Formats: sequence, C-alpha cells, structure tokens
Amino acid sequence: MIFENYLLSNINLQQQEILFISSRAQTVTLRRNDLILQAGDICRHKIFVASGLLRTYSIDANGNEHILQFSPEHTWTLDVESYDKAIPSVVNIGAVEPSEILIWEKNDFENIRAELPSFRKFAEELISRNIYYNRQRMLTTLSATPEEKYQDFIIRFPNLLQRLPLRMIASYLGISLKTLTRIRHAQLQR
Amino acid sequence: MIFENYLLSNINLQQQEILFISSRAQTVTLRRNDLILQAGDICRHKIFVASGLLRTYSIDANGNEHILQFSPEHTWTLDVESYDKAIPSVVNIGAVEPSEILIWEKNDFENIRAELPSFRKFAEELISRNIYYNRQRMLTTLSATPEEKYQDFIIRFPNLLQRLPLRMIASYLGISLKTLTRIRHAQLQR
Repeated sequence: MIFENYLLSNINLQQQEILFISSRAQTVTLRRNDLILQAGDICRHKIFVASGLLRTYSIDANGNEHILQFSPEHTWTLDVESYDKAIPSVVNIGAVEPSEILIWEKNDFENIRAELPSFRKFAEELISRNIYYNRQRMLTTLSATPEEKYQDFIIRFPNLLQRLPLRMIASYLGISLKTLTRIRHAQLQR
Repeated sequence: MIFENYLLSNINLQQQEILFISSRAQTVTLRRNDLILQAGDICRHKIFVASGLLRTYSIDANGNEHILQFSPEHTWTLDVESYDKAIPSVVNIGAVEPSEILIWEKNDFENIRAELPSFRKFAEELISRNIYYNRQRMLTTLSATPEEKYQDFIIRFPNLLQRLPLRMIASYLGISLKTLTRIRHAQLQR
C-alpha cells in the first residue's frame, strides 16, 4: 500500500500498471542491523524502502565503518556497479531501524522498465537527481569545513537527525565523532 | 579526425552517422587557463576533449580551488545539473593545458541521441562508468589515508601525473599540498 501510494503520487500510471510493478516485488522485513547485501556478494535486487532506514557502508582494514548513503522510507537503494555488472559488491547494505523493504530481481525490473515508459522515465529522473546530489556532496566533502558539512546535512536530511547515532552522521560526513560532538556542543551553547 | 577515430574505436557506426554527429559540433581552441564554463553561467554544451586537459573546479570563500574532475583527451565533460535544468553552474571548467574541444548544443545533442540508438547506448554507458567511479571515489575520500588516495590516483590516472601541478592533485584528493609533498618525498626515498 505504501509503495502503491508512492507510485501514485510520483508517476501517472493506471491501476493495473501499478499492480504489474508491485506484483513483481517481494517484501522483506529487516530487524535492526540485518543486512540485505553483504560485501563480497553480488547485488541482485533493486530495493525500495517502504518503511525504516537503511545504510550503505564499507568497513576498512581497521574495522572502521564508512557510510556512502542513507536510505530512509520512500527511497531506493542498491549497489549499482555490482548490480549492473554482476560482480561482488564492496559495500554492505543494512538496516539502521527495523525496516520493511520491497525487492525486485533484475529481470523483472528490466521488464517493468521496458513495458512502462513512464516508470522508466521516473527511474531515470531519480538516477539524475542522485548524480546531482553526489556531485554536490563531493564538492562539499572536498571544500567545506566540518561545521558547514554538518549544517548541510541538517538542511538536507532534517528528519534523519534524530534517528541516527552521532557516529553514523560523523562517518557519513567524513569527520571524527569528536569533531562532530564539539560542533553540536558549540551549537547548543549559542 | 580525432573525434571520428574515437567514435570508430568505441561504437559501431556508419560513416554517414559519424559525419552526422561531428557535423553538429563546433570546435573551440582553449589556451591554458581559458574557461569554457564559468560559475554562475548556464552550461549549454556537451564537451568532448579532442586534445589537452580540462579541469572542473569550484573556488571557496577563501579563494581556494577544489577540483571535482580532470578531463583529459578523449573524455567528455559538462556540468550535468546546470545543463539538464538550465540553472547557473556552481563550477568552472577550464583548460589546464592548451586544448582543442568539440562542443554540441543541447538540442543538437538530444537529436543525435534520439536518431542513433547505438550512440545513445554508448553515452549511457559512459554515464554508468562515471557513476561507478564517483561512488568509488567517495568511498576512497571518506575511508582512505592520504597515502592510499595518492596511490589510487597514480593507478587510475598514470598519464596525468606529469601533466598536473602538485597543488591540483592535492586539491583533487582533498589533501593539503604539504601532505602530498611529504608523501612524494617519502616515496622517492624508498
């Protein structure tokens, strides 16, 4: 129902077309910390987050976690290179909160894209928005102070602030937990 | 001629199709430091670098340059968000070396894409490769040590090392010139 409403509010589709898309999906329930993709495995699904919150991350040789992406409700995720090329993924995708997700196998998703031009167009728009955001994020990562990075995060993801442990926000911004704690402390005092 | 050979070696096209693509392009010669796009202007062209080397960069409030992309010969560049949405660009694109570039206006490029499915497919592949690379670059930027970042750059862009001033490599990697100089010095001593 969540997914059907999401489609209705984003794309002009007939009821039977919506059914065609959602009938190909499998529903998966994730507990906190469950993985839907493990580094080393091949990403075989497109993933829509119906409720909850996922994160995409890698773990370095020292056991530190580096977060590439947060995927809250009503967003999509996957490891695109692993999915496209059927090669092992370098990232994990796991649940930050208990989550309900819909997943499509590649063949099914490609069929849907081929059958429904308006869905294909919408999917392409999402990819474009993602490209714009990642360019901006790279520029911010290279050029902004830690304070500016945090400010940018607050503006872009206001509803994630309360849902994420500080260490994950710090990891996403590429700053230390100590620095982030200092920034927040300074802001609270103003 | 460079562009025609580039197409021939990458896509299966008829001679007249190649002519159709290249006849829509305008050739522009850039001296070192010339800009083909200035921050604040709208990016109205797809750009192919026939020879030379361009860089895409922003300048922060302190006058520091942050480099988003290097575009050597036989690669494409643009500010995709500015181009797609016809909004002012936040980046500059300028010549690191004297360069010869081909540029297409949006309408012409869209016509070419619509007329030639194999060219469209090739263009989409380039976008995908770009997405893969930028994901990997973001992970490296977040997780790697300065030494690892430099090593990664050497492996990925071996033929750019001698052509770029150190400060530009440092800026691209998001490390200080001092750190990069120290890393190179340590490597030379080994």
